[in-house]
Amino acid sequence: MNPHGGYPSLNPVEFSLALNAVSTILFAIGLFNSSSISVQIGVLNDLTDTIGLLIMMLSLRRVRRSFKYPFGTERGVYITSLIALMMFSGSIVGFAANRVSTSIASRLEVHSTPISLYSVSASTALNSVSLLYSLRSLRRNSGDPTTKGTIVDSTADTLAGLISLIALYTRSPIVDIVGSLLMTSLILGISLSIGMRIYEVLVGRTPPKKVLKEILDRVLKVDGVRDVNVFKAAMITEDEYLLILEVEVDGGISVEKAEKLADTIERVVKEAEPRFKHVYIELIPVRREPPTYKRIMSEIDALEE
Amino acid sequence: MNPHGGYPSLNPVEFSLALNAVSTILFAIGLFNSSSISVQIGVLNDLTDTIGLLIMMLSLRRVRRSFKYPFGTERGVYITSLIALMMFSGSIVGFAANRVSTSIASRLEVHSTPISLYSVSASTALNSVSLLYSLRSLRRNSGDPTTKGTIVDSTADTLAGLISLIALYTRSPIVDIVGSLLMTSLILGISLSIGMRIYEVLVGRTPPKKVLKEILDRVLKVDGVRDVNVFKAAMITEDEYLLILEVEVDGGISVEKAEKLADTIERVVKEAEPRFKHVYIELIPVRREPPTYKRIMSEIDALEE
Repeated sequence: MNPHGGYPSLNPVEFSLALNAVSTILFAIGLFNSSSISVQIGVLNDLTDTIGLLIMMLSLRRVRRSFKYPFGTERGVYITSLIALMMFSGSIVGFAANRVSTSIASRLEVHSTPISLYSVSASTALNSVSLLYSLRSLRRNSGDPTTKGTIVDSTADTLAGLISLIALYTRSPIVDIVGSLLMTSLILGISLSIGMRIYEVLVGRTPPKKVLKEILDRVLKVDGVRDVNVFKAAMITEDEYLLILEVEVDGGISVEKAEKLADTIERVVKEAEPRFKHVYIELIPVRREPPTYKRIMSEIDALEE
Repeated sequence: MNPHGGYPSLNPVEFSLALNAVSTILFAIGLFNSSSISVQIGVLNDLTDTIGLLIMMLSLRRVRRSFKYPFGTERGVYITSLIALMMFSGSIVGFAANRVSTSIASRLEVHSTPISLYSVSASTALNSVSLLYSLRSLRRNSGDPTTKGTIVDSTADTLAGLISLIALYTRSPIVDIVGSLLMTSLILGISLSIGMRIYEVLVGRTPPKKVLKEILDRVLKVDGVRDVNVFKAAMITEDEYLLILEVEVDGGISVEKAEKLADTIERVVKEAEPRFKHVYIELIPVRREPPTYKRIMSEIDALEE
């Protein structure tokens, strides 16, 4: 029995992987029964999704924390996803550029058979099921990056299927060429937008403004905190943040007392936002200078939402 | 005058970029005067190198440190390089797979003209100059990642030129097909090996074993340090390391004294390895337990070189 009640639910990545594999096979049957470029790109797109999902699953399994990787290997999922995404969208672009230029030169009618129509229809139907499933699981855990990625993939797959069907049905080389250019641009656009999001995490962007404001507020309210000089917050992943603080306290208190204060600050931070899994606090004696936390606050305010 | 004497020397990335642009144009002249797939892949390879180098230069210029990116945007160079590398090697694979399969089916003799032979020869000569230049600058600063990348690029370019020349000279479709498959595998292999190196940095690997051993040794020798409990060292880039320490000291000393001790530890670390640009030290009262620095030492010893 699932402790949360109801039926046991597959991880959306695993579910997508299974559907994608079947859909790739169906689409490939269409490939051998037609000369449409859209179908060829559709097969490539499905195949690369399957490989990408496999890599993602393997790297999710390899999660570990060790001395060699002090902040874990969770970031690895972002990197392998980026590698798979860029390599495969690159290969689709190279393939399409080549095929489309040949096809413009020849302008042959698209060859299609009933089998190709049936198999591509079945594949498209499967992809739309995958899309609906991901949309449903997005409503449950809206922040999950892999679910969002899966939705984007399924949308592209469903569209690719629809364009291929139109090309197979009309047998028009113009529809096929325009359709495959559309699909290629769509795939490229999606890849680059996912790439930008991954970039922000890998480069070590600061967490959302709202979170930072709340954390700084709460730290300043802790008894014994006089000022905050350093406030470095960075994303390790979208679910795991790092926070480094330099906090001013009375210079006369002992290291023993100071440790208790640092423990309190760490607890307050983790209660306000549990994603701060790495919190490090340096305590230093209070300085004769205007409070620096105000500068930090205005820097937080200056961040875009 | 260059303060180091001698002639002013171009950054190897800029030098490579200039040579690559000229070499791409020469190679492209060969393209319009021949039907060789090797030449086509050679042009793609040169073109993608040029674009990749441009991206690398632009991201080197955008280096900045801000509240939004607490550890700077230097990592961005690694990510944009990875994106360019994977996208372009992917597009070469897609292109080659397509062209080679068509060529195997037709087996037409490779069409070549004297112009294509001359322009590809000139392009190959330029690429070998770029290779020699990068090898020379590697001897001067051996750790630089962009120089290493440039060497790998130039080697691939020179080889691609040589293979294209053989295909143009012999006009044999077999030589052309085998040559273009060789070039594609070479490009793919190089991309993946550079990708692995970038992976290690982006995931946040610990710096080399030798460095860690020396740092821990020196910290333990600082007067007042009783034990080290946390020793987290991670690469932000290959030239910029992060170190987080938790150090045990006498519980009775004041925060004022403790700060001086922390400053000393930070100075000792930075003197031993200036790449530790981010050093954060938590001081806590000494614990009644066996020393934990021994466990850290054995973890460092267990790292591969």
